[in-house]
Amino acid sequence: MRRTDRYPVSGANSLWQVYKTVSFWKVFKNVLIILIGRFIPFMPLKNWLYRTFLGMDIGSYTSLAFMVMVDIMFPEKIKIGQNSIIGYNTTILAHEYLVEEYRLGNVEIGNEVMIGANSTILPGVKIGDRAVVAAGTVVHKDVPEGCFVGGNPMRIIYTKEEMDQRRKV
Amino acid sequence: MRRTDRYPVSGANSLWQVYKTVSFWKVFKNVLIILIGRFIPFMPLKNWLYRTFLGMDIGSYTSLAFMVMVDIMFPEKIKIGQNSIIGYNTTILAHEYLVEEYRLGNVEIGNEVMIGANSTILPGVKIGDRAVVAAGTVVHKDVPEGCFVGGNPMRIIYTKEEMDQRRKV
Amino acid sequence: MRRTDRYPVSGANSLWQVYKTVSFWKVFKNVLIILIGRFIPFMPLKNWLYRTFLGMDIGSYTSLAFMVMVDIMFPEKIKIGQNSIIGYNTTILAHEYLVEEYRLGNVEIGNEVMIGANSTILPGVKIGDRAVVAAGTVVHKDVPEGCFVGGNPMRIIYTKEEMDQRRKV
Repeated sequence: MRRTDRYPVSGANSLWQVYKTVSFWKVFKNVLIILIGRFIPFMPLKNWLYRTFLGMDIGSYTSLAFMVMVDIMFPEKIKIGQNSIIGYNTTILAHEYLVEEYRLGNVEIGNEVMIGANSTILPGVKIGDRAVVAAGTVVHKDVPEGCFVGGNPMRIIYTKEEMDQRRKV
Repeated sequence: MRRTDRYPVSGANSLWQVYKTVSFWKVFKNVLIILIGRFIPFMPLKNWLYRTFLGMDIGSYTSLAFMVMVDIMFPEKIKIGQNSIIGYNTTILAHEYLVEEYRLGNVEIGNEVMIGANSTILPGVKIGDRAVVAAGTVVHKDVPEGCFVGGNPMRIIYTKEEMDQRRKV
Repeated sequence: MRRTDRYPVSGANSLWQVYKTVSFWKVFKNVLIILIGRFIPFMPLKNWLYRTFLGMDIGSYTSLAFMVMVDIMFPEKIKIGQNSIIGYNTTILAHEYLVEEYRLGNVEIGNEVMIGANSTILPGVKIGDRAVVAAGTVVHKDVPEGCFVGGNPMRIIYTKEEMDQRRKV
């Protein structure tokens, strides 16, 4: 189960009323920063920008590839460890806006994690150190450290033990 | 089976001959409107734009999130009910251009439907009222009302009855 | 198994050190060409641009749809045959940058292939002539000629024989 906090709304769906739940100017500023950041070809500059203006917690040497998309409403709920790679056009979400409620959840990505291109990380999940997420995966639950996951729905392809074994070969 | 009409072509593939099947200026206008619309942060304005210039049928209070991508050739074949949410970067297609033919099909999305981020809705499908489509789903067949679907290939995760039960808890 | 060559790196992850592995100006030029190309509505012009400035091998009459994304680092490793269709927003990758190494691999797409929207083609795969790849597929291994594949993980939905049978009906 993903760890999210739930906030019911009344009347129209939660996205229709979005600026009652988050400041328009905060979202506007975030979108501007992200639209610039997605095209910045220098990782250290991109990390500085996202730490400073989005409040994201990004560890040393972590590389956000071209076109990575972080949450435009609550990017400060995203934490990424050291020396990890987030692949091309991966989406990292910290919110979900549903018809009768919205939900917010922290995303925690560990150290030396590799996330493949076009993946979608949902709010409230934790991805353990040294895990590998295959391209195109929808991460809808926690990923144990060191294992290799992929698919939609996501499943474990190799456990940590199998991955350790494969590295020795 | 998706409901599409098939139009055979002769010679090169159908996409190579695309402007024999749809007017260049129609596509040009649609792309302009959609490129603007994807970045509009106000749902009522976006809906007005898409109803007026794309001919889409969009119900009251329906929210198209940031970066939603509707068909650039035949958006008028897309109908969305009231108070629904279409998540970030979802693609809604009303056409498919194949090597020897192209196919067109209406997309009908019901009322109070929630579609998760990065989903792909294929031509000729119908999504029933109050259905929930998980993030990253490829909707290649009809979704019955009230159920929760996800995955690629898409499958029913909870039926309407199970969803009703879960809401009571 | 995908056919990729592996290049170990020492110190920080391979993407952090990306410009030791590929020239910044090459990537800069490629990104510029691709950002323009993704929006070009004329297939012959797009093919000329990609052949001339990206070094891609693209056969006659092959159609790259709106928003197709080719590898920004090593597009010259991508070969597409004649009269094929690459669908909306498909990503074709010839590299993968991992924590301790990076890998490069050729992508070979045959003649009269159809690849559906939002697919991801990984480095080191070969897609046979007349194959059909469903929308949203993650192509992580070879696709035999003439068959219909889809899903994540990708699987064969119809073999070449079944496809030939379906075409006769």
